[in-house]
Amino acid sequence: MKILITGGGGFLGARLARTLLARGTLAGGPITSMVLTDIATPPADLLADPRVTARTGPLLAQTEALRTEPFDGVFHLASAVSGECETDFDLGLRSNLDSTRALIDALRAHVNAGGKVARLVFSSSVAVFGPDPAVPLPKLVADDTLPAPQTSYGTQKLICEHLIADYTRKGYIDGRAARLMTVTVRPGKPNGAASSFFSGIIREPLAGVEAICPVSADVSHPMSSPSRTVDGLIAVYEASREAFCGRTALNLPALNVRVSDMLDALEEVAGPQVRKLVRFERDERVAGIVGNWPGGASAVRAARLGLKPHENFADIVRQYIDDCRALPTADQTLKGMK
Amino acid sequence: MKILITGGGGFLGARLARTLLARGTLAGGPITSMVLTDIATPPADLLADPRVTARTGPLLAQTEALRTEPFDGVFHLASAVSGECETDFDLGLRSNLDSTRALIDALRAHVNAGGKVARLVFSSSVAVFGPDPAVPLPKLVADDTLPAPQTSYGTQKLICEHLIADYTRKGYIDGRAARLMTVTVRPGKPNGAASSFFSGIIREPLAGVEAICPVSADVSHPMSSPSRTVDGLIAVYEASREAFCGRTALNLPALNVRVSDMLDALEEVAGPQVRKLVRFERDERVAGIVGNWPGGASAVRAARLGLKPHENFADIVRQYIDDCRALPTADQTLKGMK
Repeated sequence: MKILITGGGGFLGARLARTLLARGTLAGGPITSMVLTDIATPPADLLADPRVTARTGPLLAQTEALRTEPFDGVFHLASAVSGECETDFDLGLRSNLDSTRALIDALRAHVNAGGKVARLVFSSSVAVFGPDPAVPLPKLVADDTLPAPQTSYGTQKLICEHLIADYTRKGYIDGRAARLMTVTVRPGKPNGAASSFFSGIIREPLAGVEAICPVSADVSHPMSSPSRTVDGLIAVYEASREAFCGRTALNLPALNVRVSDMLDALEEVAGPQVRKLVRFERDERVAGIVGNWPGGASAVRAARLGLKPHENFADIVRQYIDDCRALPTADQTLKGMK
Repeated sequence: MKILITGGGGFLGARLARTLLARGTLAGGPITSMVLTDIATPPADLLADPRVTARTGPLLAQTEALRTEPFDGVFHLASAVSGECETDFDLGLRSNLDSTRALIDALRAHVNAGGKVARLVFSSSVAVFGPDPAVPLPKLVADDTLPAPQTSYGTQKLICEHLIADYTRKGYIDGRAARLMTVTVRPGKPNGAASSFFSGIIREPLAGVEAICPVSADVSHPMSSPSRTVDGLIAVYEASREAFCGRTALNLPALNVRVSDMLDALEEVAGPQVRKLVRFERDERVAGIVGNWPGGASAVRAARLGLKPHENFADIVRQYIDDCRALPTADQTLKGMK
């Protein structure tokens, strides 16, 4: 089978690609070919795999060609991140909304031409939830909590959830939207996501570098490790339609932790000197965005698919350390650890 | 002030225009100019008003010109209807989604150029609600019920609700989305809406013509009279942002009635011979669509704005009869009544 991963050069997309290539199969079929689209070039280990083709450039510029190239399965991860979408409104609409519509229209073109229906997993986000004066946020946002997004990013993700549900209802795709929790610990440099610091306050101290936490220590947030997030995307792909249950989006599992819990875990794993590298300095822009995000999430439907979050944040810190040792890069150092 | 009504040549748009022109003011300001856009030409009485300009053609073709023409207020009613959107998927995306986005982008262009923020009322629909295996419908859909649309029309309306909420959050428009209940009794010919028969089973018998009811008599549905719907759109426009409460859409008031209640009301007002002109003949396509619609709706936020539904369906039948007598047309006869 032939698989497309949009955003396949990014952190999560590359990890998903690596996991799928190592498994060799998906939903019972052998993976014979994998296309990775991204604005960034995928890591060298992926490019070295004979099954992999990389296509670099904006997704929107590639969708016209996709109309005549059939795929069995698609993981649609490509996205502009929350901070970018707030500062550049048109970029968010183009990268998140227009690109998704062009992608699913390309898949629809195959069906209209008598081709088969591609399965598609869409990475939506917990950022679809937010408080509105008419819609207060519950303590934990559930699969069926009413989304009231408070960012353009969250709005665009929610709109794509509904487009994908309707294209699925019409039989143009077999789409499943999964809401990712904040993936932590991300390697590399901080990105434009307002949630970027959630990784930074772990990653930078482990590298011996000071990190600034722009929100207070009691801010709680639903997190997921990279590995559990990738497991979730694959399980959602492999689920039967009945097991996925309906066409509305589901939450992937979350470990709901406070910043202080994260720093306690960092200290538990790496010691007090590493923790001391985190300095609190409030950033009103970031704190304002994060303040509108849910403090935690539940994931009843994902649990029915056998998906679980990590049980504690220390395990997530250990996963990051193991990853750094397995795939060392210039960005991923553990110089802060004795 | 200068007002734009999209869909201003349609039944509801023309009624709204007539009501506003008769009032002469909106939100405290005098209405000096009114533009009606529609694929159909507005009724002659509107064209005769010196304040009115009509522009005929698809909205999408007119939005480029709107980028350089400021408006104080917009009622965005133009829409392809549910039946059309199911049979022509691209038409629905173009007429409902692309047109709305182009319209609010035109309004955004004014703000970006230093102009003032236009107020916009968007006519969303109770069709945003529907049952999903993961989201069963409550007995009454409320303002904050999770929408899970089961038609492309409902999906597109919901997407526009969220686009408008985000453009409002960013300060590009002052947008308010109001979900219309099924407006009954519509005059004229049946249209492509799956809900068209709800008007037909009253309108046709009153004209002495047989009507076919494609669903069973115990189907319940949230209805609103034309006048209460127009009152609702104006009240939503005139509400302060605080009174509107947040940016999520609200339900306009509904009278929740069964088909049998409607026919009882028809008999009460027009006699048993008129009622006998309704014949039940199930249409699986229509019954399937309607079967996924809510059986009733509540409207707590609209009630706070002072909006109420009619108390009984007989009053709605009487309103239709009064309308026919006030504005007789070839389509609007009462030949069935003795």
